[in-house]
Amino acid sequence: MAEALDTNQAADFKYIGTRPVRPDGVEKVTGRANFGADFKLPGMIHGKVVRSPHAHARIRSIDTSRAEAMPGVMAVVTAADFPDRARLGFGQRAFNENLMASKKVLYHGHAVAAVAAVSNRVAELAAAAVEVDYEVLESVTDALQAMAPDAPLLHDDMITQGLPETPTTPSNIPKYGLITKGDVEVGFAQADEIIERTFVTPMVHQGYIEPHACVGSYKEDGQSTLWCCTQGHFGVRDQTAMVLGVDVGDIRVIASEIGGGFGGKTTIYLEPLALKLSQKSGRPVKMVMSREEVFRATGPASGTVNTIRIGCKRDGTVTAMSANLIFDAGAFAGSAMGAGAMCIFAPYDVEHVRIESREAVTNRPRVAAYRAPGAPQAMYAGESVMDELAQRIGMDPIDFRLKNAAVAGTRAAYGPTFGAIGLKACLLAAKNHPNYNAELPEGHGRGVAVGFWFNGGNTSSAEVHLTESGIVKIVEGSPDIGGSRASMALMAAETLGVPYEQVRVQVADTDSTGYCATTGGSRVTFATGLAVVHACEDVIGQLRARAAATWDIDIDQVEWKNGAARPVEGVNIEAEPLSIQELAAGAPRTGGPISGRASLNAQGPGPAFSVNLADVEVDRETGRATVTSFTAVQDAGKAIHPDYVEGQMQGGAVQGIGWALNEEYLYDDDGVMDNAGFLDYRVPVASDLPMIDTQIVEVPNPNHPYGVRGCGETPIVAPLAAVGNAVSRALGIRMTELPMSPPKVLEAISENGGS
Amino acid sequence: MAEALDTNQAADFKYIGTRPVRPDGVEKVTGRANFGADFKLPGMIHGKVVRSPHAHARIRSIDTSRAEAMPGVMAVVTAADFPDRARLGFGQRAFNENLMASKKVLYHGHAVAAVAAVSNRVAELAAAAVEVDYEVLESVTDALQAMAPDAPLLHDDMITQGLPETPTTPSNIPKYGLITKGDVEVGFAQADEIIERTFVTPMVHQGYIEPHACVGSYKEDGQSTLWCCTQGHFGVRDQTAMVLGVDVGDIRVIASEIGGGFGGKTTIYLEPLALKLSQKSGRPVKMVMSREEVFRATGPASGTVNTIRIGCKRDGTVTAMSANLIFDAGAFAGSAMGAGAMCIFAPYDVEHVRIESREAVTNRPRVAAYRAPGAPQAMYAGESVMDELAQRIGMDPIDFRLKNAAVAGTRAAYGPTFGAIGLKACLLAAKNHPNYNAELPEGHGRGVAVGFWFNGGNTSSAEVHLTESGIVKIVEGSPDIGGSRASMALMAAETLGVPYEQVRVQVADTDSTGYCATTGGSRVTFATGLAVVHACEDVIGQLRARAAATWDIDIDQVEWKNGAARPVEGVNIEAEPLSIQELAAGAPRTGGPISGRASLNAQGPGPAFSVNLADVEVDRETGRATVTSFTAVQDAGKAIHPDYVEGQMQGGAVQGIGWALNEEYLYDDDGVMDNAGFLDYRVPVASDLPMIDTQIVEVPNPNHPYGVRGCGETPIVAPLAAVGNAVSRALGIRMTELPMSPPKVLEAISENGGS
Repeated sequence: MAEALDTNQAADFKYIGTRPVRPDGVEKVTGRANFGADFKLPGMIHGKVVRSPHAHARIRSIDTSRAEAMPGVMAVVTAADFPDRARLGFGQRAFNENLMASKKVLYHGHAVAAVAAVSNRVAELAAAAVEVDYEVLESVTDALQAMAPDAPLLHDDMITQGLPETPTTPSNIPKYGLITKGDVEVGFAQADEIIERTFVTPMVHQGYIEPHACVGSYKEDGQSTLWCCTQGHFGVRDQTAMVLGVDVGDIRVIASEIGGGFGGKTTIYLEPLALKLSQKSGRPVKMVMSREEVFRATGPASGTVNTIRIGCKRDGTVTAMSANLIFDAGAFAGSAMGAGAMCIFAPYDVEHVRIESREAVTNRPRVAAYRAPGAPQAMYAGESVMDELAQRIGMDPIDFRLKNAAVAGTRAAYGPTFGAIGLKACLLAAKNHPNYNAELPEGHGRGVAVGFWFNGGNTSSAEVHLTESGIVKIVEGSPDIGGSRASMALMAAETLGVPYEQVRVQVADTDSTGYCATTGGSRVTFATGLAVVHACEDVIGQLRARAAATWDIDIDQVEWKNGAARPVEGVNIEAEPLSIQELAAGAPRTGGPISGRASLNAQGPGPAFSVNLADVEVDRETGRATVTSFTAVQDAGKAIHPDYVEGQMQGGAVQGIGWALNEEYLYDDDGVMDNAGFLDYRVPVASDLPMIDTQIVEVPNPNHPYGVRGCGETPIVAPLAAVGNAVSRALGIRMTELPMSPPKVLEAISENGGS
Repeated sequence: MAEALDTNQAADFKYIGTRPVRPDGVEKVTGRANFGADFKLPGMIHGKVVRSPHAHARIRSIDTSRAEAMPGVMAVVTAADFPDRARLGFGQRAFNENLMASKKVLYHGHAVAAVAAVSNRVAELAAAAVEVDYEVLESVTDALQAMAPDAPLLHDDMITQGLPETPTTPSNIPKYGLITKGDVEVGFAQADEIIERTFVTPMVHQGYIEPHACVGSYKEDGQSTLWCCTQGHFGVRDQTAMVLGVDVGDIRVIASEIGGGFGGKTTIYLEPLALKLSQKSGRPVKMVMSREEVFRATGPASGTVNTIRIGCKRDGTVTAMSANLIFDAGAFAGSAMGAGAMCIFAPYDVEHVRIESREAVTNRPRVAAYRAPGAPQAMYAGESVMDELAQRIGMDPIDFRLKNAAVAGTRAAYGPTFGAIGLKACLLAAKNHPNYNAELPEGHGRGVAVGFWFNGGNTSSAEVHLTESGIVKIVEGSPDIGGSRASMALMAAETLGVPYEQVRVQVADTDSTGYCATTGGSRVTFATGLAVVHACEDVIGQLRARAAATWDIDIDQVEWKNGAARPVEGVNIEAEPLSIQELAAGAPRTGGPISGRASLNAQGPGPAFSVNLADVEVDRETGRATVTSFTAVQDAGKAIHPDYVEGQMQGGAVQGIGWALNEEYLYDDDGVMDNAGFLDYRVPVASDLPMIDTQIVEVPNPNHPYGVRGCGETPIVAPLAAVGNAVSRALGIRMTELPMSPPKVLEAISENGGS
């Protein structure tokens, strides 16, 4: 473990790396925090969405007259109420059509109208009274079938993009991608062992506890306000403005607390409908999804079919890696196949790489981001083959990866040359971890897998206001999902040299702070953190100036240290240090209140690697796989608040275990999801799981003052393969299809010659 | 009128001086704006105040057990629940005692306890069930009686401050003040005519339409949030923190829209009670006052008894002015007598001045600020005597004032030497106004009076955020009472060179913007306006830098003009101007979003003078005085949004007319207010009034980039005397007591020999 710990090059921080209670903690444990559905306005009414009962159908006509005539109904909207979509490009048109179908419904649950009424019950009755005349079409919910030439065509104007030659006829394949490095044929020719396998992963949902909810209020002067649960209220503003055809400055969005998002709350479903209903009714309109609506009509993660071929020499040197990825995008283009393709082989320094990818549209809900989008599915396949190759050549799976691991200077197939990265440190930490060296009972399996995510930068802003008592009020615009208010407070405390308790952080609305891109991609602690640090430095500059004026010396003769201004060494004046409290109390007299600000587009996020270890016991009679031990090792760059880094690692592990063992969208022949509820769509609960062990590795990101990389995405990437490899090794059968639920395990056992 | 108009030295403004619709206009006319009582939170309960039924009594004990035991009652608080007041100074102790009495009640309606329950009705019943054992004391509601040596003593530790020799025995006179210039005895010796009279003005209420209301929510970690209607949420925060003994950083205050304040919403009544009830109950607590509570227990303006002596020569030269002011402070020290003393003779350049002032405590509610606090009462007296002197020497009352008017360079008795001021311009404008030269029907009277207010500066902050579409979002912390959001938007539009419609202004909460002192003293358009202008200049600096980087030239080679960056003349590059829209759209790529900020303590507010003309018809049979014409002339420095300056002038005139003719607190012998409702406390309504004519004079304030002085206070100062002088001239009887209600007019007629 020694080498791993040596990578912790952390400076002697006073606040960063400690574990104080998060600012929103009390409000959340006492139930006082307000989430999306908790907001009320005087005169508010309730909206419901009318959804398609068919997986694929043409809309002949919509008759809203019966619904409109019902007592208590105050507005009904259809696609005809929104701006003409002809003016929009393909992508924006698809975005709009997904919100409310105008000509065709493309999946069961697709929105076709919305109603608003004085009560939820009246709104439900009115939604049922909207009469839609459908011409039902043949549907397809399987990506491979959808790619067949005779498949029912979802969009008659969809031409595959990204091929060397653009086809002339439409298909259900919106996009093709190719990444190459070297020549895989040369690489495979050098290999002693080659394994090729095809892996299938199901469509799964993020499973956030809080369904989508919003309140929209439109004013007659065209100014609107939205309250909603979202990972990015600036994004909600931009998307809603696009759909309504108004200026982004005409909509103010206020983010509630959020009961989970995991990528699924980076896009909109209800918000423009609520505003349009508000405009028509002259009332604020609340819309809240049921869990069933969340499953049927929000964005899950793509199901995939991924074929992997990897070759290596007997000494463990990987000579070639190739992949063919197929992602199910749901009803519209826009899966994460690109990111999956970029991630899949990123951990390895291999000369010859080829990654081909395709996405297919199917009569399922349009997919959305889900934590490290695309990477879990792709890397499940890649890391499974890596595991099997290690078995084949008789090498320890960690040693096999250490032999091929990317290091600083490695050029990844998808483009960049890595700077300081922590993969080797994580592999060594895993190898030395007691859990990896513990005895493994008979019939159990131990799996290893590597995970990777780029991490994000992007635009962020922050303002800082000092109270007269010296309390530091931070204002920023990144919804706090994983404890980012605490992380911001710790970075501000460290920068200003004041106790954590003296810093208060607020996530402000889109009118009250500078632009912050959506919380996602593991960008917030890095990018918004950088903005907070810079805004604090703006404040420090002013505090030094006030002190300099007080002492009648030059600002360059004043330094800021431990929360106080003091003359730099060598300046020959008698002056006691002026604390932030003293300077804040005197501020009105020395020039006015003190506020700082920063806005930036953060460059240089640090890529993050993880290594996961899973021990699994498989009951060969029932087919049930039980995870008995799980260890997540990850390079956080620097863990600002280690509790919340560990929480991310644990949460990602749990979601990955669910993906590996239980979760899947099940469809019937009519394209209707069979299990649209948590009773039948089973996510792991505490009793299904061991305590997830974590080990944070810290290889600082040189592009952040405190070394932050970001930590929210990577944790979900490796568990699928770690659990898959453990099950495979426990059974002695290579598993290639998720979820490894009891029926599938029993089937695999039976296919391989019985128990 | 020519000279007056010549004073308009306004530059060629594009947006300033126009009259666009105010940003909050639609919300307010559609009834969608949220005021203090409109806010709701999940789990919220309702609080009521238990009030004293006696004007003066000792509290022997309070028994809350019966109230606490009532079903649905969730908390009861008394003074014992608040931090020990012994640690506080005299003033802070009084502030606390007014919020909730601990040992003595000092006026009928004084708070002694508060309850919170699941409904308003249960809370009312619980309030009635709180048992207080009182020892009733003799009360005094008349200031002159309270000053008598044998008067019942309200505070046994109150020693008069400000006298040359501090007395050793307590009294009901907390404060004495003296302003002198020259030697009035010398001045009076030079006079040909001297008039001395004593004037009485009643205690009156601001009469804001919206009663005080708030919701308080306390969290177990000590962090609280308050929603309330207030003129200054930062002030509410500071005052509430003081009362609760917590750090100002522990309370976040969100200001609702406000239904009038006029100075009466610069202090707190309910807020700490709501938070203490929230702390005890674990629930958010709403408290809303009834109109009766507003009258009995919030802060009206002082009743006064003012004796004035002015001498002049036969040519109109005033040789000496002296005043003796007595202000009724209500139950605790802190009237506006000081400001009244400073204002009373400020319009005149007179060598010998003496102004003595005293305040008295009485068993009435503690007074609060009311528009130009202290000035209307004092100047009513001064301007009445000036009017009578003009009559005495047979001089036109405007000419008399012109002869003695202060000008730039005049040293006011209260200290400062005036810079550019607009008094003479206003007097000339009034003299030339058609209404002053219109024929006056028999039996009507025409009154003239001058008004004055210093105007305020103080601390303000603002932030500016550009959307990617180039919309300018302003964030500031000054509650908008009179249209200040529109004024801020106009100043931002002018500074940035973008249309008004492109600017959106928000009044943010205490955690979301830099400190802004309370909206009052006519400071906001000046001081917060200055912060907005500076924050826009911060943005312009960044826009120029982005353009300079784009063109690869120095920032000094880029100027900002008409909403776009362009190379300064002589820079030899080919470059189309870059508009704010283009620069904003490109911002993410050129360094990140663009935000600006400014915080300051605004120096150099411009004193504002007014001249009012009133025509009054008096019915000698009923005693009813009807204002038939009213003209308000005022120097605004520069009217940023003339509609709202005129609105201030009209509103102040109406309140002043009410003060002159109708409004007064009436007390019975037990110290109980007889007319605590709008039915019996009669404020003027539209049918009582003529259209108020306005004329804005503009003598720019050199300390503001657009010349703003401030305009909200001055309008209420002159109407009392203008109407009083008109009634006096109509009757041929010098009126000396307000209100000049029908009974008083009939009494004056009868005392002066009948009709």
